[in-house]
Amino acid sequence: MDIFELRRDLHAHPEVGFTEFRTANRVVRELQSYGYSVAYGIDVMVPESRRGLPSADQLTRAYQRAKEDGADETILRAMDGGLTGVVATLKGRGDGPTVAFRFDMDALPIMESQESTHLPHINGFRSVHDGEMHACGHDGHTAIGLTFAKMIASQPFNGTLKLIFQPAEEGGRGAKSMVDKGVVDDVDKLFCFHLGLDLPLHAVSGGTNEFLASTKLEVHYQGVSAHAAAAPEKGRNALLGAATALLNIHALPRFSSGATRVNVGVLEGGTAPNIIPDKAKMVLECRAETYEDNLDLEQRVRAILEHSALMHGLTYQIENIGEAATAVCDPELKEVVLEAAKSVPFFTDYQDEHPLGASEDATFLMRRVQERGGKVTYSILGTTIAAPHHNPKFDIDEEILPAAVDLLLQIAIQSLK
Amino acid sequence: MDIFELRRDLHAHPEVGFTEFRTANRVVRELQSYGYSVAYGIDVMVPESRRGLPSADQLTRAYQRAKEDGADETILRAMDGGLTGVVATLKGRGDGPTVAFRFDMDALPIMESQESTHLPHINGFRSVHDGEMHACGHDGHTAIGLTFAKMIASQPFNGTLKLIFQPAEEGGRGAKSMVDKGVVDDVDKLFCFHLGLDLPLHAVSGGTNEFLASTKLEVHYQGVSAHAAAAPEKGRNALLGAATALLNIHALPRFSSGATRVNVGVLEGGTAPNIIPDKAKMVLECRAETYEDNLDLEQRVRAILEHSALMHGLTYQIENIGEAATAVCDPELKEVVLEAAKSVPFFTDYQDEHPLGASEDATFLMRRVQERGGKVTYSILGTTIAAPHHNPKFDIDEEILPAAVDLLLQIAIQSLK
Amino acid sequence: MDIFELRRDLHAHPEVGFTEFRTANRVVRELQSYGYSVAYGIDVMVPESRRGLPSADQLTRAYQRAKEDGADETILRAMDGGLTGVVATLKGRGDGPTVAFRFDMDALPIMESQESTHLPHINGFRSVHDGEMHACGHDGHTAIGLTFAKMIASQPFNGTLKLIFQPAEEGGRGAKSMVDKGVVDDVDKLFCFHLGLDLPLHAVSGGTNEFLASTKLEVHYQGVSAHAAAAPEKGRNALLGAATALLNIHALPRFSSGATRVNVGVLEGGTAPNIIPDKAKMVLECRAETYEDNLDLEQRVRAILEHSALMHGLTYQIENIGEAATAVCDPELKEVVLEAAKSVPFFTDYQDEHPLGASEDATFLMRRVQERGGKVTYSILGTTIAAPHHNPKFDIDEEILPAAVDLLLQIAIQSLK
Amino acid sequence: MDIFELRRDLHAHPEVGFTEFRTANRVVRELQSYGYSVAYGIDVMVPESRRGLPSADQLTRAYQRAKEDGADETILRAMDGGLTGVVATLKGRGDGPTVAFRFDMDALPIMESQESTHLPHINGFRSVHDGEMHACGHDGHTAIGLTFAKMIASQPFNGTLKLIFQPAEEGGRGAKSMVDKGVVDDVDKLFCFHLGLDLPLHAVSGGTNEFLASTKLEVHYQGVSAHAAAAPEKGRNALLGAATALLNIHALPRFSSGATRVNVGVLEGGTAPNIIPDKAKMVLECRAETYEDNLDLEQRVRAILEHSALMHGLTYQIENIGEAATAVCDPELKEVVLEAAKSVPFFTDYQDEHPLGASEDATFLMRRVQERGGKVTYSILGTTIAAPHHNPKFDIDEEILPAAVDLLLQIAIQSLK
Repeated sequence: MDIFELRRDLHAHPEVGFTEFRTANRVVRELQSYGYSVAYGIDVMVPESRRGLPSADQLTRAYQRAKEDGADETILRAMDGGLTGVVATLKGRGDGPTVAFRFDMDALPIMESQESTHLPHINGFRSVHDGEMHACGHDGHTAIGLTFAKMIASQPFNGTLKLIFQPAEEGGRGAKSMVDKGVVDDVDKLFCFHLGLDLPLHAVSGGTNEFLASTKLEVHYQGVSAHAAAAPEKGRNALLGAATALLNIHALPRFSSGATRVNVGVLEGGTAPNIIPDKAKMVLECRAETYEDNLDLEQRVRAILEHSALMHGLTYQIENIGEAATAVCDPELKEVVLEAAKSVPFFTDYQDEHPLGASEDATFLMRRVQERGGKVTYSILGTTIAAPHHNPKFDIDEEILPAAVDLLLQIAIQSLK
Repeated sequence: MDIFELRRDLHAHPEVGFTEFRTANRVVRELQSYGYSVAYGIDVMVPESRRGLPSADQLTRAYQRAKEDGADETILRAMDGGLTGVVATLKGRGDGPTVAFRFDMDALPIMESQESTHLPHINGFRSVHDGEMHACGHDGHTAIGLTFAKMIASQPFNGTLKLIFQPAEEGGRGAKSMVDKGVVDDVDKLFCFHLGLDLPLHAVSGGTNEFLASTKLEVHYQGVSAHAAAAPEKGRNALLGAATALLNIHALPRFSSGATRVNVGVLEGGTAPNIIPDKAKMVLECRAETYEDNLDLEQRVRAILEHSALMHGLTYQIENIGEAATAVCDPELKEVVLEAAKSVPFFTDYQDEHPLGASEDATFLMRRVQERGGKVTYSILGTTIAAPHHNPKFDIDEEILPAAVDLLLQIAIQSLK
Repeated sequence: MDIFELRRDLHAHPEVGFTEFRTANRVVRELQSYGYSVAYGIDVMVPESRRGLPSADQLTRAYQRAKEDGADETILRAMDGGLTGVVATLKGRGDGPTVAFRFDMDALPIMESQESTHLPHINGFRSVHDGEMHACGHDGHTAIGLTFAKMIASQPFNGTLKLIFQPAEEGGRGAKSMVDKGVVDDVDKLFCFHLGLDLPLHAVSGGTNEFLASTKLEVHYQGVSAHAAAAPEKGRNALLGAATALLNIHALPRFSSGATRVNVGVLEGGTAPNIIPDKAKMVLECRAETYEDNLDLEQRVRAILEHSALMHGLTYQIENIGEAATAVCDPELKEVVLEAAKSVPFFTDYQDEHPLGASEDATFLMRRVQERGGKVTYSILGTTIAAPHHNPKFDIDEEILPAAVDLLLQIAIQSLK
Repeated sequence: MDIFELRRDLHAHPEVGFTEFRTANRVVRELQSYGYSVAYGIDVMVPESRRGLPSADQLTRAYQRAKEDGADETILRAMDGGLTGVVATLKGRGDGPTVAFRFDMDALPIMESQESTHLPHINGFRSVHDGEMHACGHDGHTAIGLTFAKMIASQPFNGTLKLIFQPAEEGGRGAKSMVDKGVVDDVDKLFCFHLGLDLPLHAVSGGTNEFLASTKLEVHYQGVSAHAAAAPEKGRNALLGAATALLNIHALPRFSSGATRVNVGVLEGGTAPNIIPDKAKMVLECRAETYEDNLDLEQRVRAILEHSALMHGLTYQIENIGEAATAVCDPELKEVVLEAAKSVPFFTDYQDEHPLGASEDATFLMRRVQERGGKVTYSILGTTIAAPHHNPKFDIDEEILPAAVDLLLQIAIQSLK
């Protein structure tokens, strides 16, 4: 199966975060067949560090679907419950650095377009999973990763090659569980990539800036219901707590150190006009231009949430359902990428950095590598996109796929010596 | 069909407020057959004055159900969209007062019990409409009304007899639309009734006190959504408005003139953590021991709702989805009821008044009659109840039914001369 | 000095709560001269249990004033800092019950009238202390207590007589410190009194009802100031915390068990528009028809205060500056009072109980006595008042004074046997 | 009197905004003596457009002080009530542009240092007005303006020279009233200046950037007081309104278009714990990096203030007590300033622009001139300062004074041809 067929197969079978059972299954089998030592499931993820896990029901349905679709059951069982991360390792001939590449595999909960201008639809590889879609190019990332894995395996190199196939990048939910398991603790150089964004075909950036740190929280308040007329004082009013939290979270101070954002995007609670509401749910996020400000802001948000509950006698649960950090790319690796690009004729436009202006949880992998003395970069590979990312009509120009594999090969050869 | 069969047929076919198509259809046909002049639909209700109308979908389903069940289509069409009130008039031989009796017909959205101790289940007249149930005795009220109508029609009397079959008493939603149409404007004496409550079988009260005035509101705020990180200032945040309203409604002052209650029982808004929420919905109620305090409180609640919206640039809709007033029974009519009861051997326990401690929209009919110089009362007819009102195992002791008809006959004979 | 001169001397020298240095000094000396064993200062009060203590400055000025006015310095020193309570004990000849009478001594911070209709002004005994005034009759209470003390001392009786002269009744600030010291722990019967209220001259009530439980709190929030434009995130905003507390305190639920009240009557904070406010002060009260509801409400208010501070990173101080409980008078003692009244010809109108509809901290003494098995009552002695209590033109009809002494004598004789 | 004596005389007689009676009086008389046509009082200011006017009492005291100090009474009377602006016009020989220079005259409410290192104190020209001080260099501005006025008057030039002596720059309170009167409507070129800031002696900037737009508001809420226990519903609670406003103002959205700030710096209301508070006062500010965002923010703040009052039945007054805009200096005039500086040997360091990072209401004059097609600049003239601006030990190095006059002469000569 060539890279185009591979990408189209993945595109037709999108799986949202932590349900990449079919995708990860295939990734494991392919990598094993190329001679890699492949770890997955509990061996590459800390389950508790995952964010925004789907419901048990959703996980079960996706698991069954993958099973019916022919996934290997032994591998599948190890991924049960959403442990869909994969890490493959290949030792070179002699000593040398550990060089890692990271690929994300998850799709989005979007209904793919059926319009006559949408190529995947016309060409018969539109999503067969209703309401799920590869609308951010991760199908391409995975296809590039597997093709690159196969080709580099037959090349001579020194040191250790590490391929990280990450689940649940969307919403910032999967990277942390791999970081916490230590999968990048021995990495000397980490290369991350993304297709598209606003870079045109034939352009490539050595690195990326303007990552936005963010945290998403889901909050549940539990009070006590009571008849609102007969015994209001017997109740513990969850909506009073939630309204107080909402107002005070928005009223947190602006930061002089950089832009910040807070938003309680969802608030739901109560059952009937004559019942003191005993439950309230909030979904919210905070963001900041710096990782430190976002942490500070998150702590303030949590203090508001905690004390708004306690003042009304409520218990509360606060779940982190997604997060992303900021990161700074190392000049050395940006240069590696651009030098490699110069040896791939397809690329003609070289940029030092390209702004992301969004959140990406590869930043957690990048920060950990840097904390332990390694170097990192996050490179953008331009491609023509049919519609913006996360749009039902999103599509990439597949011409970038083989060029990307060539680029990775050049980077790997240059780095593993 | 005797009164027991009639009550059981109605019990088996419960219809919630404004969907009493089958019930009202039957009421119309029976009353016509007894010689009454019968008005219904738009002729006895102001559509805009109805509160808490069901969804169009619910109305249509109930309409179809009644049609399939054999309802007369001409009558049905006049009730389309929930115009299920009926008023029957019968002129006596000579001049005399206009005396009205009021019966309510609606059921509740409750799943009726299937336990082996629940008589309607054992005896085969449990609700055939899943999730609807006569759990407040209105099936009995309607059966009494029709039986009484038939019997009084053959008796000589002076003046005018008026029978009001009201839809949607539950939640305080139907009476006002009949009042606004003027159906009691010519009434000199109005007798209202309720079975059960806490009065035992064989007991009867001449009147009722401790009506609670109440208002239920459903509120919709409409703002503008925007990306919470990219352009928060472009949004108009409906949840900020709603949280402000919720806190301030609860913070309204206590009244020295009597107990009051407020409760925002439901608050729902927003879609996602990264979107400024553009919609919020609240369902709330206020209550007071006096009608005047409740009106005052409602005005304050509305001021909070209005200005909480406007301060955040939101538009708003406030719908009254239910209301009840207070009322005071006239001693003259209480005495009429008790005198009549004394001539019905079934009754052995006579009380001047019995406290309701709840809300009842017959109060609107009562107030209007009094405003125009008439007299009113609201009498409780005791019966053994198997479980509290509004409980899935609620049931009445049918022994009260023929006794109630006798009582009404005595009242009518005594009043219509 | 007769009772009229005594009352006028006290009236001319009003001293607000905890500054009754001259008054208490005189009380001590008189009682000692009649043969009582007299305790005062730290021996009859727990300093920490006092509520709403005046400023050190106010205490010092009043102390100096009393000293200059000839107060005994040894006694004065023992009362330094506001320890102005006095308890006198006199043992009878034989064994018998311990019977206590309670008198309050404090004045109010009111400027006394100088109008030509105001008797104390015309007759030259208007307050010589600018801004302080006996506007609630406690001058009469103290004069009655001392005169009674002198007369009963020469009578034969059994058991133990205990006279409690309490400071700082106004605002509910002094009784608790005497209760906590245990001054009523051995009391079998406690008689409390008040002149006036709405009872006319010649009328007397055996007891009192409708005491209102209440708590007054003074709250200080401390945050961190910062430049509102240059570094808002460096601040900890005390006004955000206070505004949140204020809204949520008012939004606490109504109680079905009886009327309640909450009010944040004062809020002050901040210094300038461009400074994040680091300080806020609130003065508030809660009340309830029952002592238990008031305690419950106070706990809720404190929870709001605490968590509103903590959510914004503030420290807080909450000081109880006044409180009162409810109490129920024992029928036995009410009868004792009324029986005694019947033997004093002055009284011609006997009432079982009279409603207070206000707060009174004698309730703490009363509850303690009852907790330990004793009996209590609180009797109202009618008198004509020139203006309502706490009014600058308030005055009593002094005719009640000797009659009240007679009444107490009869009560004492009847009880101490 | 030379420029040093003049500046020291002004320094010794500081007058805060709108009380510059002595200063403006002198300005008028000097300018008249040089042959200028001088307008002042109502002729150069719209009284209603003044912001943050001192109390009537403060105005009267300052007026009396000036009168006793020998001010001309005719002029004084025209400035009564705080109309202390002055505009002087001098026509040149031939036709030419209208060129304006702006000088501000007001002092600050600061107690001037008496330390031995403070030169004005040592040299005997410390403020004779307790609590008022020239701590921002406006004494120097006025001295430069008058000296320049005298010297340019004897020089030949074409066109029209306009000298604007503005009151109440501090807090952004005086400029708008002169703009609204139209005093710069005919100006082709406007030159504004400030001494010091962070520029060293001998340095000069052609223009200024980083003006901060800001608005300061003082808000009064008026409700109805009532006894908090006896009749809480009779009250209209001003603190509930104010707390709601405070929370919601802080909760206004962050702007993606640039940094914004809001701060309710002062909140005061209520009198006693048992009284529903009928009054509340807030002092607050908003700021933004752009004038448009600040206007938008101010509108949102006003909407919150208005509706928070109305929802609780309060009336409200919102007074703008200070404001400043942003402005952009025109390159042509920056060059004029720098070219002129090059011909004054004193200046050796030329900068295109210097950041202000603060608010300045000359921006209103500047914006109006530009709106009508004119050009503007705001230049900083460096001087050594003994302590930061607005500090009790602030002082300038007087060496800058004659150099500044020379610079202005060069600018005028170059511009008026």
